[in-house]
Formats: sequence, C-alpha cells, structure tokens
Amino acid sequence: MYNFIAIQTLFDDYLSQHFFQQAPSELYEPVNYILQLGGKRLRPALLLMSTQLFDTDIQKALPAAYAVEIFHNFSLVHDDIMDEAPLRRGKPTVHHQYNINTGILSGDVMLIYAYEYLLKTENPSIIKDIVQIFNRFAIEVCEGQQLDMNFEQQSDVTIAQYIKMIELKTAALIGGALELGALIGGASREDAAHLAAFGRNAGIAFQLQDDLLDTFGDPEKVGKKPGGDIVQNKKTYLIIKALEIADPTTRAELLQWMTMPTTHNAEKIQRVTSILKDLNIPTIVEDVKTDFMQKAYAHFALIKGSEVVKKELLELADKLANRTF
Amino acid sequence: MYNFIAIQTLFDDYLSQHFFQQAPSELYEPVNYILQLGGKRLRPALLLMSTQLFDTDIQKALPAAYAVEIFHNFSLVHDDIMDEAPLRRGKPTVHHQYNINTGILSGDVMLIYAYEYLLKTENPSIIKDIVQIFNRFAIEVCEGQQLDMNFEQQSDVTIAQYIKMIELKTAALIGGALELGALIGGASREDAAHLAAFGRNAGIAFQLQDDLLDTFGDPEKVGKKPGGDIVQNKKTYLIIKALEIADPTTRAELLQWMTMPTTHNAEKIQRVTSILKDLNIPTIVEDVKTDFMQKAYAHFALIKGSEVVKKELLELADKLANRTF
Repeated sequence: MYNFIAIQTLFDDYLSQHFFQQAPSELYEPVNYILQLGGKRLRPALLLMSTQLFDTDIQKALPAAYAVEIFHNFSLVHDDIMDEAPLRRGKPTVHHQYNINTGILSGDVMLIYAYEYLLKTENPSIIKDIVQIFNRFAIEVCEGQQLDMNFEQQSDVTIAQYIKMIELKTAALIGGALELGALIGGASREDAAHLAAFGRNAGIAFQLQDDLLDTFGDPEKVGKKPGGDIVQNKKTYLIIKALEIADPTTRAELLQWMTMPTTHNAEKIQRVTSILKDLNIPTIVEDVKTDFMQKAYAHFALIKGSEVVKKELLELADKLANRTF
Repeated sequence: MYNFIAIQTLFDDYLSQHFFQQAPSELYEPVNYILQLGGKRLRPALLLMSTQLFDTDIQKALPAAYAVEIFHNFSLVHDDIMDEAPLRRGKPTVHHQYNINTGILSGDVMLIYAYEYLLKTENPSIIKDIVQIFNRFAIEVCEGQQLDMNFEQQSDVTIAQYIKMIELKTAALIGGALELGALIGGASREDAAHLAAFGRNAGIAFQLQDDLLDTFGDPEKVGKKPGGDIVQNKKTYLIIKALEIADPTTRAELLQWMTMPTTHNAEKIQRVTSILKDLNIPTIVEDVKTDFMQKAYAHFALIKGSEVVKKELLELADKLANRTF
C-alpha cells in the first residue's frame, strides 16, 4: 500500500514529468509557476488514495489526479485576481508576478488542460462519467466563489447560506476528487457516492477548521499571524454565529468593528477575538465540525474496499479536519 | 435540407430554450447577457451544416453547436477584459455592464458549461473524440490570444507569425466546429479531417477579410468607421506586409505614425490608408485570401456527403471569406 507520503511522492514525480513545455512561453510559464508553488497536493492525494481502496494499481489514476490539481490551481489563479491577493503560499500570486491578463489567460488554458488530462484516463467506459463529475464540482466551485463575493456586499448572511457557500467553494472539489478516484479504481456507483458524501462533509469540517485557525490558531503552527479574516471583515462561520447569538450590545459592538476604517487593526483583532471567545465560539465551531465529521464517518462506514487503505484514508481525513499536517 | 437561415432559426430556438436559469443570478445573468447580444451564430451554424452533410437529423448536433457558441462567447468575454474593450456588438461588454470579477467568473463557468453541453451529444462512442477535438481548438484559441497580446510588444512580427496567430485565434475554432459537426453526423475520420482543414483555411481568409474591411470597408456595410486598427496600431496583415515591401522612406513614415501619440487620428488614418493603397496592399491581401480559399476548396472537393448541402456550405464559406452577410 502507498501511504500518504508515498502517494505525495508518486504524484510529485508525475507532476515534474508533466510540466508545460509548450509555446508560447508567456502563456505556459505562469502555469508552471503556480504548479511549482507547492502545497500539500491534498486533492490529488485523496483521489489516488480513493483509487487504492479498490485497486492496487493507482498509476492509472495519475492523469485524473493531475487534472484535479490543475483545476484547483486554476481556481486559485482566478480567485487571487478577484480577491486582489498579492501573495499565495508566501510567494507573489500569478497576476502579481506577471499581470492580470496573464492570470486570466493562463488560468483559462489550465482549465482546458484539466479536461485534457482527465481524458488520458485509460478506461473509455468511464470517460463520460468522470467528465460529468468533474463538470459538476467545477461549476459548484464557480458558484461558491460567486456566493463568497456576494457575501461581501450582504449584511444578513445566515449560517445555512455560509455552509452552502463553503460546501460549493471548497468541499465539492474534495468530495469530487474522492468520487473520481473511486470510479477509476472500479468502485461501484454506491461506493463512489458514499466517498463523495464523505469528502463533502469532511471538506466542510476542513473549511470550518480553516476559519477557526485564522483567528485562534497558533501562529507558529499555522504559519501566519492570526486575525486576517477579522481585519478583512470576512463573514466566516465565527462571525455569523457570533452575530446570531450575541446580546444586542455585543452585536452592535461587533458590527461597529466590522464597519470601521482600517486603522486600529491590532486593537480590532484583540477585541473581536475576545468577543468571540466570550461567546464560546471556538467550542461551538468544534461541535459543528464534529457533527460534519460524524456525517462523513457514517458514509465512510458503508464503503467497501481495502481495510488497510480505509484506515490510512481515515487518518488523512482526521488530519484534514484538524489541519495537523 | 435546412439552409443557413433555417439552421440559424433552429439554433436560436434551442438557445432560447437553454438560457441559464440557475442560481446565483449574479453568476448566470451575465452569461445570458452575452449570449443574447446576438451575432450571426456562425460557428454553430457551420457545425450543424457539417452534420447535415452526412445525416439529415441535425437535432442531435444541437448541444455540441451550443457548446461551441458558449465557448466562443466565453472567449469574447475574457478577451474583452484583456483588450479593455468597452463595446461588443454595439453594447457594453460584460465587464463594463457588470464588473471585471463578474467577467472572469461568468466566463469560467461558461467554459465549463461548454463541456457540459458537449457531453449531451448522444452517441457515447464519439464522446472522447469530440472532447479531444474541442480541447485542441480551445487550447489553440488561448495560444492565439497570447500571441496577439505578445505582438503588441513586438516590433518585428513576420507574415508567417501573423498567419499562425490568426490560425490559432480564429481559424482553429471554425475548423473545429466543422470537424465536430462531421463526427456527430457520422462522417469518416478522413472527411472530418478535410472539413477541419477546409474550415481552417477559410477561417484564415475570413480574418484577412476582417483586417481588410477594418481599413478599406464601406462604413455603411461594415457598420463602423474605418481605421480602428490603424488608430490602435494593430499589426495586422496589412501593416506587416506594408512594412515588409515599403521603401525605407515610406517604412520610416509608417513606423513614425505607429509610434505617435494618439492625437491627429483622422490625419493618421488618412495617411496610413493612403500609404497602404499606394503599396497595393488591398490587392495583395485579396490574392492571399484567394490562396487560402483555394486550399480550402481543395480539401472541400475531397469530402463525401450530400451534394446539395455541400453547395449550401460552400456558399456560406464564400460569404464568410467576403463577409457579405
């Protein structure tokens, strides 16, 4: 069996053999740039692990794993333009390193190449299914990004709307990667659907953990200072829940901080964090995370497939939901 | 047989039944906006006509025709952002009507839906082939757009480089639409390849005609004032050829006009047009167009399929190369 580390190595080897050498270099160099910025290759690793549940030969799933990684990075390139983000993984974003037009066009060609790699999957009988699964989550990622942008202008975002947004923007792709991997491994429709649901619920927990760490994470472990979301007035689960349960005075104070000009950031982070703590938000989020992980486990329990791989995949999902790697 | 008009009607009916009703409306309304801006639906019409060469039932090709039209409009939305174009078909471009982020994201989701419609083609045995053909020209369109942007910064663009650029940016999609239509109609590989080559050569002629009309067209027929390319210092076939064949003095004058600040536009248009005329550029371009149409006809002559549809398609190609519709 390939464990997570072995799968990461396998994938990184494939990736380094499939950099974009085509002309014009102005189009393809930025593609290699973003693909080489690294990251944990989580989505392709999940896809390959999912194949391994049903088939020891996971080489056949490498092109689809690459398709998913290319798609993920395409969405980062375009999202970073929309969010005007200067940095990604500590390095300049594509549109900062090059320019916005390059970001748009190199992103576009990445999306097309994702389909190109998807088609390299050898089994012709599943091509239509895997392109359909890919389309579905790709559309969901766009819809999630649109909702995320809508929320910036919207003062009354509900918890249900927020969960829907992160399900589309983040969790759908995680579930979709697992579903693709399962089908390529020869899983039944039922097993593939359970893996998709497992990934979708774990993916929501993963995003909630991300929200939590942004405010309450250990800077040394997380690799960045806490409070970024607070400074940007992002309506994360933490803030939406706090606005929902706070007494009128606290609610008013929170809203005041969120509409204040961006001076006094240190004070703002300190005060908002303190309000969230007083409202017991970290515990509430932990509980909700647990609920989603329970749903994920319930689907997981119904999946057939190699027990030893199941154990490895479960450990990976736990790490994911706790971001301890 | 469906003639061009009947095919346009058939396609417009399909399109109006397949507007994007999904949520969030912020994402999909701009998609409907650009799709409703009109245009002659040339690419889907060519696809459907190509199917009709081999099969009287062209309904089966409607989803792929829509895929091609969605893709074409996606590329317009993103290109208009890159080119900072305020107008498209006389109406505000998507990023002017909405904003740049909307243009990026709605364009992205259009590209994904193009694949979604492609998959609706009923014959499962050709799905992989048609997605592969689609990928190839979609990649070429991106590469062509990149070359076009590169040329803005490049003073020594050759005729060969320019032809390559328009082949990628414009002609590949026309050839690809015909190839897709042929395969869906049940054509042999050989016939499909000849149709692709026919479309590619006719597409180059089509773009050369576009260049010609921009400077020498009758404003009443073309629907815009002549000289747009000259004002923008676009390195079209006309200018590249003129720089190649002009004597040193004329060449210097042309280059001087092209680097001048954008005052004196009327004088610039008049003088550059006059230089091009003196150098016999319109005749040269007509000759080159004829060469490409001859290549197109040579491929066309080898295609099997309904003679009456062949005649209709050929008339359409002639209109295309002369832009007389």
